Amino acid sequence: MSDFADRLAEAVRRDGPLCVGIDPRFEMLPAAYQKFAPGFAVESFCLKLLELVRPFAGVVKPQAAFFELHGPEGMTAMQSILWRAREMGFVSILDAKRGDIASTATAYADAAFGESVWNADALTVNPYLGHDAVEPFIKAARRAAPSRGLFVLVRTSNPGGGLFQNAFGADGVPLYRRVGIEVNDWNEGGLGDCGLGDVGAVVGATHPKELAELRALMPKVWFLVPGYGAQGGTAEDVRAGFLSNGLGAVVNSSRGVVFPFRPDDANWEHRIVEAAKKAQVELREVS
Amino acid sequence: MSDFADRLAEAVRRDGPLCVGIDPRFEMLPAAYQKFAPGFAVESFCLKLLELVRPFAGVVKPQAAFFELHGPEGMTAMQSILWRAREMGFVSILDAKRGDIASTATAYADAAFGESVWNADALTVNPYLGHDAVEPFIKAARRAAPSRGLFVLVRTSNPGGGLFQNAFGADGVPLYRRVGIEVNDWNEGGLGDCGLGDVGAVVGATHPKELAELRALMPKVWFLVPGYGAQGGTAEDVRAGFLSNGLGAVVNSSRGVVFPFRPDDANWEHRIVEAAKKAQVELREVS
Repeated sequence: MSDFADRLAEAVRRDGPLCVGIDPRFEMLPAAYQKFAPGFAVESFCLKLLELVRPFAGVVKPQAAFFELHGPEGMTAMQSILWRAREMGFVSILDAKRGDIASTATAYADAAFGESVWNADALTVNPYLGHDAVEPFIKAARRAAPSRGLFVLVRTSNPGGGLFQNAFGADGVPLYRRVGIEVNDWNEGGLGDCGLGDVGAVVGATHPKELAELRALMPKVWFLVPGYGAQGGTAEDVRAGFLSNGLGAVVNSSRGVVFPFRPDDANWEHRIVEAAKKAQVELREVS
Repeated sequence: MSDFADRLAEAVRRDGPLCVGIDPRFEMLPAAYQKFAPGFAVESFCLKLLELVRPFAGVVKPQAAFFELHGPEGMTAMQSILWRAREMGFVSILDAKRGDIASTATAYADAAFGESVWNADALTVNPYLGHDAVEPFIKAARRAAPSRGLFVLVRTSNPGGGLFQNAFGADGVPLYRRVGIEVNDWNEGGLGDCGLGDVGAVVGATHPKELAELRALMPKVWFLVPGYGAQGGTAEDVRAGFLSNGLGAVVNSSRGVVFPFRPDDANWEHRIVEAAKKAQVELREVS
């Protein structure tokens, strides 16, 4: 039984499938925030952002890189955002694309899920190192209370993502599909009451055909769908990611929802609210 | 011209090809250190470790996971170790296996190489996301002063590493070789006076046959070879990673050099010195 899968289902039923991607680029922050030291500025802006988007999204995805960029102070900000998101009832996905082996993977997982460290609900994971690199993450996610989840990179949204992911095997199966088959197996061990499990897949909105193909291949797997909005994917493009019951996918928008303003725009709070509301409505229509 | 490749060559010529992998597992620290808060304990132990191994290795590789595990205080410790390593003349490889796209990859690279952030000499990178995920790292490494380097995961040392890496393509070429061909191309743009470049490859000591094959495929690429020592690879196994001039590879040992003692062993400093000396001698013989 997966607490994680059911908590995610509850969030999507309540607030729709929008996931707000928190990529706090310092140079895009409202001008008033840019007067502060970067760690503090990023933390303050993100705390405000959580309040603004709360009515429109039940899932948030902080991007570790934009916090790490500000050193230990940035990591303190990341911790603060993840802890506050939990208090506010968000499901949080730490987008760190971790991937390592054995006890090193366990250390990353314990950092991601540990109550005194980041305490995120889910973590994105890179599968290049194989099964023994993903398994420690799965074990740590299932050992945590409440249980946590993973999203394994399967087919990413970037233009060059196909270089290795689309490489066809001797059996005619491209790598992303081979990874998808493994994810589907791993997920079977952690199904929740909602019928979905705790090992999800990252599948980009920019590849609608592959999204539909992978949806059919992995009927009980939660999808995290990046690429909607600023990266060019439309609400129509993500339709194929959903199951008939409206569950099965959370759709991420980062810049489109978080930075729909210029730094000198006094009305920035209103712009975020409007962008989040619009994304919520659009995504509810296709889910 | 690559400062990085030449600085690495200088370190290997001077101190041999040993790279000390800094994986500070709290529960393995000497008992006296375990009395302190984890962040401080890890930092103090690693600073001492740098002094102890300095005569025997010119390269160190801190593993980000074991610092991240201790939250912001752990990241402060990681910063302190990397900065001190630079002052002491080590070439530092931050083993974080980062992989992301576009401006997110740039943020990770700027964190790794930024003077006020981690200021490492090199970073390990995961290629699953393709060319546009590796390119921002290369650009950032070449833009930095002095220039920095990358080590791209090609064939990892873990038992299950072959699940995807050894998948044969329709053309009979396994994935790790396909990645190796790309790394070889990327590396051409950053050759140093030593004849080697700034985009290296991670190739495990646990696969001697593939190590030899990749050495032939990538004659100007620096290899970072994990798996020697505790993971089962022998000095003989890594011989094929070197060029005839003794350059071309740095061979990592983590537990074997850093933890050749039990926490209650009063003689732990001596054990580290002996283990580092032995590894230096063994690796010089095969290089």
